[in-house]
Amino acid sequence: MVTVNANPEERATPIDWETISEAHERIRDRIHRTTVLTSTTFNAMSGAELFFKCENFQKTGSFKIRGASNAILSLSQEEAARGVVTQSSGNHAAAVACAAAWRKIPAWIVMPKNAPEVKRRAVEWYGGKITCCEPTVSSRAETAARLQAETGAVMVHPYDDDRIIAGQATTAKELLEEVPDLDAILTPVSGGGLLSGTCLGAKGKRAGIRVFGCEPERADDAYRSLRTGVLQEIESSDTIADGLRASLAPRTFAILQTHVAGVLLVSEEEIVATMRLVAERMKIVIEPSSAVALAPLLRAGGVDGMGLGKRADGGAVKIGVIFSGGNVALGG
Amino acid sequence: MVTVNANPEERATPIDWETISEAHERIRDRIHRTTVLTSTTFNAMSGAELFFKCENFQKTGSFKIRGASNAILSLSQEEAARGVVTQSSGNHAAAVACAAAWRKIPAWIVMPKNAPEVKRRAVEWYGGKITCCEPTVSSRAETAARLQAETGAVMVHPYDDDRIIAGQATTAKELLEEVPDLDAILTPVSGGGLLSGTCLGAKGKRAGIRVFGCEPERADDAYRSLRTGVLQEIESSDTIADGLRASLAPRTFAILQTHVAGVLLVSEEEIVATMRLVAERMKIVIEPSSAVALAPLLRAGGVDGMGLGKRADGGAVKIGVIFSGGNVALGG
Repeated sequence: MVTVNANPEERATPIDWETISEAHERIRDRIHRTTVLTSTTFNAMSGAELFFKCENFQKTGSFKIRGASNAILSLSQEEAARGVVTQSSGNHAAAVACAAAWRKIPAWIVMPKNAPEVKRRAVEWYGGKITCCEPTVSSRAETAARLQAETGAVMVHPYDDDRIIAGQATTAKELLEEVPDLDAILTPVSGGGLLSGTCLGAKGKRAGIRVFGCEPERADDAYRSLRTGVLQEIESSDTIADGLRASLAPRTFAILQTHVAGVLLVSEEEIVATMRLVAERMKIVIEPSSAVALAPLLRAGGVDGMGLGKRADGGAVKIGVIFSGGNVALGG
Repeated sequence: MVTVNANPEERATPIDWETISEAHERIRDRIHRTTVLTSTTFNAMSGAELFFKCENFQKTGSFKIRGASNAILSLSQEEAARGVVTQSSGNHAAAVACAAAWRKIPAWIVMPKNAPEVKRRAVEWYGGKITCCEPTVSSRAETAARLQAETGAVMVHPYDDDRIIAGQATTAKELLEEVPDLDAILTPVSGGGLLSGTCLGAKGKRAGIRVFGCEPERADDAYRSLRTGVLQEIESSDTIADGLRASLAPRTFAILQTHVAGVLLVSEEEIVATMRLVAERMKIVIEPSSAVALAPLLRAGGVDGMGLGKRADGGAVKIGVIFSGGNVALGG
């Protein structure tokens, strides 16, 4: 784990509580207020009291619809008429295609050619127009920029966008509305949209809460960026957590430097074992990226190592875990 | 599909509405009131409005805890002190072991040697004492009878028992309490405990509701029994729906002859495809037996073939589907 300096210099972000609340009002009727599940099994395994925010049950199968719908519903009529373009490994792609369909505007989607078939089918289901690219950060960005130039569409970046971050922040906002006295929240981190949104959404409700990012060892750019204080990029990754292969943007990096308590790394073996355990014990389907946010709590001493201290009420620490999505290829 | 005669001679069963309500009171604080989910995808595929009663989220991972806990909590102190014995392919076994642990009494469990490993582990987890037998109806019964003779324990049969049927009836009772105007309910059928309980529990709330059993083609004894009017037995079955390999008992057969609207047969291919589709679209894990209750609705013309007629309100017919359990081996 890397622990971020406790009191770094505050950096300004225009995403304040009012922005997040407005985003929530904008998207509330379009999205599911997803359930928060508990599990006796995982409480016993972790020694903490866990609360699972189930964005695997969200529309389009992941939290990404929150940010995408906030961004697309925020567009002026003139902007919307040009359509939208984005690049994504899958869940943001489906979310943009879905939200664009709600506004009846075209969506051009750049997807890496190794994106799971189930995620490609989802984009097509919502009417998105797919362009394939190489599975590298630079190929994604170049292809999207070219498409934008050709079509004149508005770019809806998967995370380097305040409207997206404000939308993702509504996940933690809802979780804290349901369980107001959480001590910590764990969420996966890739480009940092969900994690920075979680920081802002959670701390807006409960200032002292500690927010941790969870990241595959094989895509550990956020861990290294926060440890070194210099934004690190990964060009590509083969982690099974296909939603976590992107790198932070300067925008999300700045928010994380201010607000994140630490980044926890997870092995590929832990990801697979955790997915299976969740299916076996909770009877729900989560994608590998979601498993990354639970795995650190299932290790011996995992919770103790987070430095959360004791609760004033003497009970087990209360930890929120964001299951970010449930779109997984099931074979066959 | 076999359609049962509309007005067969009524046969008396001692399981009246009061018995079911008492069972519900007895077990209510011990079990989960499981959620009822809906799915836009499956509504579109079936042309009906579907309501899924999610017993995969039930304690021990299946509805079986309802009947087992009703039976075991009904025992006198003197009976309970002798312990309990049963035979089961898995879910009833875990349920008996769990309810026996609540009463702090021993549970001897006969399981066929081809029962899924995940179900054996569950029985052991609750402290049940397992004895293996051959995977045949006669070997199960003989082994259980021998164990009972040796131990003096009380037999808690998986379905040939009014207390069990009354407990299983609480599943439909809860579903109708939540969705009072269902036109029909589909449930898997094996020994007929859940199906006969569903008939009694559903019709006690809504007399005109039609209740269908769903059965694998490879274990079609209930279909043949109801078609011929003579109880048919299967000695063994290799259907993937490992929970549905038992045969009706005279007790459950009599209730079904009076109350069931029909039995729908399902192929192995349909079972596997339906399980996968449920995981992909609903993000929940169901076991093969549960998939059997949805599969008939996903065929072209499946709902039309059930003869439900039109709703007075002009809307799509409303159908309850009981997802009986979620205990499935996930490999690895």
